[in-house]
Amino acid sequence: MAKIALGTGREATQPDCLKALIVEFICTFLFVFAGVGAAMATEKLAANALVGLFAVAMAHALVVAVMVAAGFHISGGHINPAVTLGLAVGGHITIFRSILYWIDQLLASALACILLKYLTGGMGTPIHTLASGVGYIQGVLMEVVLTFSLLFTVYATIVDPKKGSFDGLGPILTGFVVGANILAGGAFSGASMNPGAVLWACFGDRSLDRSLGLLGWAPHWWWASRVNL
Amino acid sequence: MAKIALGTGREATQPDCLKALIVEFICTFLFVFAGVGAAMATEKLAANALVGLFAVAMAHALVVAVMVAAGFHISGGHINPAVTLGLAVGGHITIFRSILYWIDQLLASALACILLKYLTGGMGTPIHTLASGVGYIQGVLMEVVLTFSLLFTVYATIVDPKKGSFDGLGPILTGFVVGANILAGGAFSGASMNPGAVLWACFGDRSLDRSLGLLGWAPHWWWASRVNL
Amino acid sequence: MAKIALGTGREATQPDCLKALIVEFICTFLFVFAGVGAAMATEKLAANALVGLFAVAMAHALVVAVMVAAGFHISGGHINPAVTLGLAVGGHITIFRSILYWIDQLLASALACILLKYLTGGMGTPIHTLASGVGYIQGVLMEVVLTFSLLFTVYATIVDPKKGSFDGLGPILTGFVVGANILAGGAFSGASMNPGAVLWACFGDRSLDRSLGLLGWAPHWWWASRVNL
Amino acid sequence: MAKIALGTGREATQPDCLKALIVEFICTFLFVFAGVGAAMATEKLAANALVGLFAVAMAHALVVAVMVAAGFHISGGHINPAVTLGLAVGGHITIFRSILYWIDQLLASALACILLKYLTGGMGTPIHTLASGVGYIQGVLMEVVLTFSLLFTVYATIVDPKKGSFDGLGPILTGFVVGANILAGGAFSGASMNPGAVLWACFGDRSLDRSLGLLGWAPHWWWASRVNL
Repeated sequence: MAKIALGTGREATQPDCLKALIVEFICTFLFVFAGVGAAMATEKLAANALVGLFAVAMAHALVVAVMVAAGFHISGGHINPAVTLGLAVGGHITIFRSILYWIDQLLASALACILLKYLTGGMGTPIHTLASGVGYIQGVLMEVVLTFSLLFTVYATIVDPKKGSFDGLGPILTGFVVGANILAGGAFSGASMNPGAVLWACFGDRSLDRSLGLLGWAPHWWWASRVNL
Repeated sequence: MAKIALGTGREATQPDCLKALIVEFICTFLFVFAGVGAAMATEKLAANALVGLFAVAMAHALVVAVMVAAGFHISGGHINPAVTLGLAVGGHITIFRSILYWIDQLLASALACILLKYLTGGMGTPIHTLASGVGYIQGVLMEVVLTFSLLFTVYATIVDPKKGSFDGLGPILTGFVVGANILAGGAFSGASMNPGAVLWACFGDRSLDRSLGLLGWAPHWWWASRVNL
Repeated sequence: MAKIALGTGREATQPDCLKALIVEFICTFLFVFAGVGAAMATEKLAANALVGLFAVAMAHALVVAVMVAAGFHISGGHINPAVTLGLAVGGHITIFRSILYWIDQLLASALACILLKYLTGGMGTPIHTLASGVGYIQGVLMEVVLTFSLLFTVYATIVDPKKGSFDGLGPILTGFVVGANILAGGAFSGASMNPGAVLWACFGDRSLDRSLGLLGWAPHWWWASRVNL
Repeated sequence: MAKIALGTGREATQPDCLKALIVEFICTFLFVFAGVGAAMATEKLAANALVGLFAVAMAHALVVAVMVAAGFHISGGHINPAVTLGLAVGGHITIFRSILYWIDQLLASALACILLKYLTGGMGTPIHTLASGVGYIQGVLMEVVLTFSLLFTVYATIVDPKKGSFDGLGPILTGFVVGANILAGGAFSGASMNPGAVLWACFGDRSLDRSLGLLGWAPHWWWASRVNL
């Protein structure tokens, strides 16, 4: 049975922790740059809504697979505060280091969004909204299901010591589930499984659904960390 | 030569059986949630029919790969009553446990569909129908071919002990074949290779083609289990 | 240096040869069923030409990966007379068995096309044509490049004994190159890298470009088998 | 700490160097043929801009994965002068051989583009341009980020000796990141991470953004080679 580990402030000065924070920053930055950039490209090219959703889903699927794999051996390649929290609940990262990771990921995400705004000539970064007919409770519940799905996949295909023959395929499968979940939930709740990716959007539009989305993650970390142990 | 195994009622009380049923439930639920959810998103965004079919096919390809891999070491990751029956015919799961799996998968599918109906503000879950010009016999035959294709892939890339260097790629290839088959058959017979995914739809619309689709699976489990032995 | 092997008539009565022919038949049949079926679905749903080309390319990419892997340990999973000839030139299959494979593949392809015609309520199987502005010599040259690309990939990622760490990924990469080549050449020369898949179409429309396409394969088998030895 | 290695002129006469140049030529030629060919097909079929961008991104993702893997054991499968330079900075290829590779890659790219022009009945090869609202500095900065992303992925998933369980997946992940980056940057800066692929376009249109794109690669090779060492 894994246990939550607190960790100590000394970790911050260890060279491997610093290196992990640099790699996590780069991976999260490149993930948000490609993912949010694709959403902005979709807006720019003014396509059919489903074509746009599909392009965004595939961009996320591809870049998540890459950045989780690229960062894996140094920082773990979480690129998502929800994943970091999910792993902390299972005892795979200390609480102290998790907090450093969250700050790191949110700074990387914010930098990527600011840079995208500048590079695209001032376009806004996309804001997730609830679709018509979808209320707050429904939006939160959908985010709970989709983020549980992501964390379940991370635990089953990356963390699980029994994964055996799937060794190495975990990051690709994690990318796949993100793609499928965006195709399923993007049109209803925004499928914002990643608070890092939407931080900048929050500054511009403190919509309830965004913060409710963040709250919605609460209960399923525990579940995801339980199922595969 | 593999033989069909009956199994006994004692299995139901074994801890590994219970654990398998929980994991199979979660995997099937998340598979149906993403697959059917994507079909509902397609309907919501009112795109060109082929764009819609493509988005649904890709969502299924991605999430099938993930959930087969995620459940593999605990429940086998069947996520589909047709796959469970196909493996029972080959003697890879007992008849008794298969029945538990079917109930489990159908409950997971129904829960996912009920939840999707609620979360999308009351949208109907999609109902597969035969295309104009496609009769009942044709619809059944097409489902027979497509489900045989799925089972053949499961046997050749996951079950087959000679698979060797493809070890671990089976779930991804199973996702791939589901995607290709939906692109090929979705516009004609609905490509409903998975009765679990359409259970809820059946309650609303007991169309003949649906039940014929279920009947259509009968002959090819035996074939699929033969070819690779 | 590999040498072309003639083989003898005795091979036909060996059990492993018969088994290989059955598996090759099934793999080719399922490949053509999904690939040509997707092309017919595209026609049925009357989408934008590029959306149609894209759906066909992805269906081929996915099903090629699956069927090459599924048949690999028994028949080699060629599913394409051009690949069989390419491997015969490199000495990886005897000429005698190649001839059996070609007949097998063409029968499987014809059966899949006849069945698709019946199952779709009499739709025609698609006929590849040269685009306006693309002459016969240009069409043949493009097919030469695209089929060389396919054979080069088969040799480099499946046949090559040095492939090492890519072990097992060959079929997926072969599917990938087929997808990319259809996206590149489908709108110009039809990207008919597979005579098996178009046999039935030839009966209905003996267009020059089709037979020229077949001729066009001549020179590059030798090249593809050279580069990686 | 890896060091830049100059190499000597003797390398050019070594048989393994000649073989590497032939394989690198073939891989680059086939990569450009499929990638640029897909862009020309998109133009020919006159689709929605996002559908076109998506088809081009996927064609590149697929063919990059294939050609990097196909060339890996002989030439390294760089298929991109930017990657060759990035590996030279990390000391993984000598400067002398890098120069031979660049000439090789540019010739292969030019030949592929000339051939495509002829085979398509005289269509122009596509020219990347900056989108409206995107200035030169912004275009260069976006190319810097996207090419850094590509090199970071090459180092982390192919070069890095710690990659362990991801062994063999590097080329596929490299294809994935190219696909995601084109989806993100294609509509703004052209996402021309590959000077080889655009050489021919430059002859027809010496636009500033093209040459600025080339300049833009300067600073990040060093960074990419640092992060994973």
